[in-house]
Amino acid sequence: MKILIINGPNLNLLGRREPGIYGTGDFESYLMVLRATLEKVTIDYVQSNIEGEIVEAVQHADGVYDGVVLNAGGYTHTSVAIRDAIGAVKVPVVEVHISNVLAREEFRHISLIAPVCRGSVMGFGLDSYRLGVLALIG
Amino acid sequence: MKILIINGPNLNLLGRREPGIYGTGDFESYLMVLRATLEKVTIDYVQSNIEGEIVEAVQHADGVYDGVVLNAGGYTHTSVAIRDAIGAVKVPVVEVHISNVLAREEFRHISLIAPVCRGSVMGFGLDSYRLGVLALIG
Amino acid sequence: MKILIINGPNLNLLGRREPGIYGTGDFESYLMVLRATLEKVTIDYVQSNIEGEIVEAVQHADGVYDGVVLNAGGYTHTSVAIRDAIGAVKVPVVEVHISNVLAREEFRHISLIAPVCRGSVMGFGLDSYRLGVLALIG
Amino acid sequence: MKILIINGPNLNLLGRREPGIYGTGDFESYLMVLRATLEKVTIDYVQSNIEGEIVEAVQHADGVYDGVVLNAGGYTHTSVAIRDAIGAVKVPVVEVHISNVLAREEFRHISLIAPVCRGSVMGFGLDSYRLGVLALIG
Amino acid sequence: MKILIINGPNLNLLGRREPGIYGTGDFESYLMVLRATLEKVTIDYVQSNIEGEIVEAVQHADGVYDGVVLNAGGYTHTSVAIRDAIGAVKVPVVEVHISNVLAREEFRHISLIAPVCRGSVMGFGLDSYRLGVLALIG
Amino acid sequence: MKILIINGPNLNLLGRREPGIYGTGDFESYLMVLRATLEKVTIDYVQSNIEGEIVEAVQHADGVYDGVVLNAGGYTHTSVAIRDAIGAVKVPVVEVHISNVLAREEFRHISLIAPVCRGSVMGFGLDSYRLGVLALIG
Amino acid sequence: MKILIINGPNLNLLGRREPGIYGTGDFESYLMVLRATLEKVTIDYVQSNIEGEIVEAVQHADGVYDGVVLNAGGYTHTSVAIRDAIGAVKVPVVEVHISNVLAREEFRHISLIAPVCRGSVMGFGLDSYRLGVLALIG
Amino acid sequence: MKILIINGPNLNLLGRREPGIYGTGDFESYLMVLRATLEKVTIDYVQSNIEGEIVEAVQHADGVYDGVVLNAGGYTHTSVAIRDAIGAVKVPVVEVHISNVLAREEFRHISLIAPVCRGSVMGFGLDSYRLGVLALIG
Amino acid sequence: MKILIINGPNLNLLGRREPGIYGTGDFESYLMVLRATLEKVTIDYVQSNIEGEIVEAVQHADGVYDGVVLNAGGYTHTSVAIRDAIGAVKVPVVEVHISNVLAREEFRHISLIAPVCRGSVMGFGLDSYRLGVLALIG
Amino acid sequence: MKILIINGPNLNLLGRREPGIYGTGDFESYLMVLRATLEKVTIDYVQSNIEGEIVEAVQHADGVYDGVVLNAGGYTHTSVAIRDAIGAVKVPVVEVHISNVLAREEFRHISLIAPVCRGSVMGFGLDSYRLGVLALIG
Amino acid sequence: MKILIINGPNLNLLGRREPGIYGTGDFESYLMVLRATLEKVTIDYVQSNIEGEIVEAVQHADGVYDGVVLNAGGYTHTSVAIRDAIGAVKVPVVEVHISNVLAREEFRHISLIAPVCRGSVMGFGLDSYRLGVLALIG
Amino acid sequence: MKILIINGPNLNLLGRREPGIYGTGDFESYLMVLRATLEKVTIDYVQSNIEGEIVEAVQHADGVYDGVVLNAGGYTHTSVAIRDAIGAVKVPVVEVHISNVLAREEFRHISLIAPVCRGSVMGFGLDSYRLGVLALIG
Repeated sequence: MKILIINGPNLNLLGRREPGIYGTGDFESYLMVLRATLEKVTIDYVQSNIEGEIVEAVQHADGVYDGVVLNAGGYTHTSVAIRDAIGAVKVPVVEVHISNVLAREEFRHISLIAPVCRGSVMGFGLDSYRLGVLALIG
Repeated sequence: MKILIINGPNLNLLGRREPGIYGTGDFESYLMVLRATLEKVTIDYVQSNIEGEIVEAVQHADGVYDGVVLNAGGYTHTSVAIRDAIGAVKVPVVEVHISNVLAREEFRHISLIAPVCRGSVMGFGLDSYRLGVLALIG
Repeated sequence: MKILIINGPNLNLLGRREPGIYGTGDFESYLMVLRATLEKVTIDYVQSNIEGEIVEAVQHADGVYDGVVLNAGGYTHTSVAIRDAIGAVKVPVVEVHISNVLAREEFRHISLIAPVCRGSVMGFGLDSYRLGVLALIG
Repeated sequence: MKILIINGPNLNLLGRREPGIYGTGDFESYLMVLRATLEKVTIDYVQSNIEGEIVEAVQHADGVYDGVVLNAGGYTHTSVAIRDAIGAVKVPVVEVHISNVLAREEFRHISLIAPVCRGSVMGFGLDSYRLGVLALIG
Repeated sequence: MKILIINGPNLNLLGRREPGIYGTGDFESYLMVLRATLEKVTIDYVQSNIEGEIVEAVQHADGVYDGVVLNAGGYTHTSVAIRDAIGAVKVPVVEVHISNVLAREEFRHISLIAPVCRGSVMGFGLDSYRLGVLALIG
Repeated sequence: MKILIINGPNLNLLGRREPGIYGTGDFESYLMVLRATLEKVTIDYVQSNIEGEIVEAVQHADGVYDGVVLNAGGYTHTSVAIRDAIGAVKVPVVEVHISNVLAREEFRHISLIAPVCRGSVMGFGLDSYRLGVLALIG
Repeated sequence: MKILIINGPNLNLLGRREPGIYGTGDFESYLMVLRATLEKVTIDYVQSNIEGEIVEAVQHADGVYDGVVLNAGGYTHTSVAIRDAIGAVKVPVVEVHISNVLAREEFRHISLIAPVCRGSVMGFGLDSYRLGVLALIG
Repeated sequence: MKILIINGPNLNLLGRREPGIYGTGDFESYLMVLRATLEKVTIDYVQSNIEGEIVEAVQHADGVYDGVVLNAGGYTHTSVAIRDAIGAVKVPVVEVHISNVLAREEFRHISLIAPVCRGSVMGFGLDSYRLGVLALIG
Repeated sequence: MKILIINGPNLNLLGRREPGIYGTGDFESYLMVLRATLEKVTIDYVQSNIEGEIVEAVQHADGVYDGVVLNAGGYTHTSVAIRDAIGAVKVPVVEVHISNVLAREEFRHISLIAPVCRGSVMGFGLDSYRLGVLALIG
Repeated sequence: MKILIINGPNLNLLGRREPGIYGTGDFESYLMVLRATLEKVTIDYVQSNIEGEIVEAVQHADGVYDGVVLNAGGYTHTSVAIRDAIGAVKVPVVEVHISNVLAREEFRHISLIAPVCRGSVMGFGLDSYRLGVLALIG
Repeated sequence: MKILIINGPNLNLLGRREPGIYGTGDFESYLMVLRATLEKVTIDYVQSNIEGEIVEAVQHADGVYDGVVLNAGGYTHTSVAIRDAIGAVKVPVVEVHISNVLAREEFRHISLIAPVCRGSVMGFGLDSYRLGVLALIG
Repeated sequence: MKILIINGPNLNLLGRREPGIYGTGDFESYLMVLRATLEKVTIDYVQSNIEGEIVEAVQHADGVYDGVVLNAGGYTHTSVAIRDAIGAVKVPVVEVHISNVLAREEFRHISLIAPVCRGSVMGFGLDSYRLGVLALIG
């Protein structure tokens, strides 16, 4: 089984950015642990701060991966383009968030991509990614 | 580890209600499978159609369980009382939904309880409960 | 033909509550007249002030009655749970109101249950119930 | 007892327009059946696609008819002029709709005329007219 | 003079729930002090987490008590049913809140029951109840 | 000097409609008095319940009259077409209302035609027409 | 007959402020002409930039004048205090505006004082004051 | 191929109305050029200022024409009745506007009829009509 | 103990203004009774119709009084300046209203000052002041 | 005559994405047909999923092309940056959409770029591009 | 060069009010430093808590000063009167705020005066005043 | 002291784009003057039309520069991603705008980045950059 994790803007700062909220480990370290935990799954990873590159990452995942775990970061709330990319591909996409976005500022309460995702997992810190992968492998 | 699953209104109809959306199995059957899968966890279960009884179930879970998996059904979108109950107890509560509520009618997009829960899992069918329990046991 | 009339909160006060609006007869007296008028129809009746009990009354009507006449009172405007109950059963439900709710306060203009009912009758005093039963028997 | 049924825009297309929703019979055929069913009532009928002509039909009904059954069609949601006409006459007006307008597009959820009508009946197909007449004759 | 204090959902947790906000004493202890302070007043007390039971408590107070002090908790902001109960009875009802609800989340700024109460007292901690009783005895 | 008074829907009912608000005299009687009072002005008059006929009356006034006094009745709040007609002609148009529309229902607070009129006079009963003519003759 | 004209903030600048909109004459000059035109009326005049002084001017007019012509300037759109003053006195108040406020910025479309005035005249330049006085003397 | 062009309110003023926006030619002259350009198409034309007549023109086009080019003018933004007429007929309707309505006042940004039209063309002056016809003939 | 009562605009009219709502006694008379009732408290009093003077009264109370009872009248709903004054001082301020503002016009439902006050008392007539003082002395 | 067609995000998927809506041909094939049909026009083409690259494509078209046909895809509804680019250049831009965006989700009803385009064409499938080019060549 | 600094309500409390936000120095001390720093500029200063006095200060600055630096405090968000004063004078006005008002409560996000000011500086503590003066002297 | 100026989309067009608003000089020329004026400050400069590149420019500035002056152009109003980048770094960011965005279209009134910036300067033409730098060096 092949899964692609796509991280959006500012998630390259994990471990350095607001550690009180996001923890002190970077995503690469977490990814090593995650791969070790879920041995039977091949997990690829891509990060981009550019909306259009996330659109393309979703497009390219189609037919190549069995599922996508997507943390679109700030684009979650503003990107019709990413929504359209998800709607245009057949590969299932699971939305994840590290923090509980519904408990933060009001503009974060709207997710443009949730309605076209299979489901959403949010608020469990980095563990949201593990749960997202588990949701895809059933 | 002891987990309490609380199901809100109309979830007693699972298996009979709109099987295209909710599947054909009832919740009790699913629960048996879930308990078998997660052997090390004790999972208790309560269902009520009455808002105030859910308030009380949350209150009583405090100090007794290590976590609560709550599908508040239709009360998710309207109940300040359940929100206050969750805010008043120390036991962590995870919000789950069978369907992807963000892809349905607009009045279902607002969750009054999400901001006081540890996190949310939605859209994975009955598997959302398993993911919710996994989120609690870490 | 079997019809169930369900009355929601405060409708047990009929005859005592604001007689200028609601008339001076209680609902039980009216029900006797209604049954006499519509001899061929068996009309059962239940009243509850508790939202969850109305949810259950709707659930239990399924497969037992040929139709439900529902005056959800104040829950009309706030209850997703009752809406979900109606959506989950096959028995047709007709919404009725004694007063013309659209001519009262603005928060009464929204009916969460109307979209899942077969139709609505409002504003004709207690006669709304007779019209609701007539709508069900065609 | 004399009743006037007023039909607004596009209701002259009944039987031809979206038969899945509106049925295959035209209104004149239905009217014949209705008159036969309610023998003691004289039922006159007028249809117009022009807002101002409906205003005038309401005005002229005053003092001539014992009640008006009005399906204002698309003007229901936009016409202050028809509302003012109803408010200016003494003859009671009952609002009817063939479909359940509250289950359709959001702009159909607002009825400018409901607050000045005696009551409303909606969602029962052509049978809404019969119920509207019954509401007027009590 | 006979007064009924009605407490809504989660107020049974007083003393245990967020003591920084609500203080460390439970309501029963406070009630003993209150009764001692206001010797000439008979104060009865009921608490419920169930919306419909509060509706009934308000109904039953009519004709039995000289006034009701009501802290409807989370139902303050969502319950048309309780509002209708207050509007249907003759006994005067005073709304009280322990915290200053207008300084908290926005959904707490709306009180559905305030417009039908004689008056409101909020923000003085448990002392709001004493002021509410004083308002009733004039 | 030639002035055209245009009256919109339901204003043909003046004297019969809600005399508490609109007075007991009909408009024709008032017009005779007005013409006598303002001898030097030729005042023509037209009334229609049909939106499109008011559009045309405004169009035809251009180049024929020195000013138009327009009471668009219920169309005041809904008609882009009349607004566009006023915007398309050179003859100055003064908006008048018998009642103080800003003190009535909220949907009457919006005037689509006011922004393209020279000015507005409202709330002085039939005397609003005289003030409107005076405003045009300066 | 005694009339008081009250001018609110910035109206002391008339003749100097945006002459394209407000004309080049100051208000005192205009007032002399107005008094000459309406010989039988005694017209007093007060201007203040301070909201509370306008409140007091309205209060003091009660029982002294037969009517008040009020141009509340920028306070028109924000002052509940002036509204309450008008509502508290018996002397009739007519609202006037030099420009057509409904054709300007959206925040000027709301008049808090219009609903408690006898009527409103707007958009006729300084002539609005004459029309306002004429409206009071009938 | 037979096409019907329907023009709504105030479009009879073309050539006279705001020539800076709408040009100096009248519609009839333009129509002659258009017919000469598209020789193989029969183009009929009707204009009305009355909403209900446009409803009827749309109804009558069904089965007679291969397509309708509709400029509903000011009714574009307010007419549910015209929308319903388009929704009730099988003949394809193309919405056109001379000016770019989305660059004008906010109330012109909403088109009630666009969702039931095949497509929309706006902003190209009278050339919008040619493009609309071309869209219909493919 | 020293308390300052501050009354805002139009409260100088008490006893004369709408006696059905506000009673027939003036505030000075009431104040005498209040002082007699609460002998141990020194109660000073100031009234102003000017927003900025209320700002200053709040500022000057700081360090001089043990508490302020403030009825800001119409400024309650519009004054950020008074809110900021309360937020800037240490002396506790209690908001009071004579009428139940939440049962009146919608623009009175918003209190800009409530969130920075210790608490609020509204709807008990002049007795609201006594309750406000009692809230301050505990 | 030189025209540039700019396609935004996900339009590179044409022919593969939701063929029921978008057809089964890819854009390059369509472009060949279009060039053959409009022999006298030179048509260049660029596609990008990145908002900023579309901004630059618009900038670079200025002075090089006689017109731009722009389908901004999902950025239509969210991009102030593309709007500003169009507003900053002199080359005329025509907005096109394959589907009728006004008949889809509500967030697609707002076009930030329409107000600065010469005009818009939407809903005619790929034929919208041909109409867009025809609009530019007049 | 002559500059007038106008401070609105509560700014007389600087140094005493919330020193964590506003610092511990009073404005007069700051002003001395500012004057020393900008030797070539004459800086006058006025503070008032009364909205109308700020209106007058703006009016009087016209023709006397080369620029005004205005911190309108709480009136920033509510005063149409001050906005009109700025719009009526020729002297350029720069809006300043000590704190970053856009990062505080939502009602502080709206500035009625910003659109008529030359520019705005906010969030730099007392240094905002220096930047405001620098903006005026260019 | 090292400052980074970041310019967002379309600001590369300065001098060519709408010179009436933005002036005729390009940004590079202005930058030379600015560097000469502020000799002690090292000012680096980057411009990008791509949202994600601005995110990265903000990230890379952290630890390298003493402050950032950011004109995010059209992304100011839509970019949660840039907001998150600013919130994630320690380097202070000052928001600047050439024009007074609050006096332009309504969608420009919302700044998503202002709440996380140290302060904002807007409306002073290119001089806003100088003021922004001065604000950073104090």
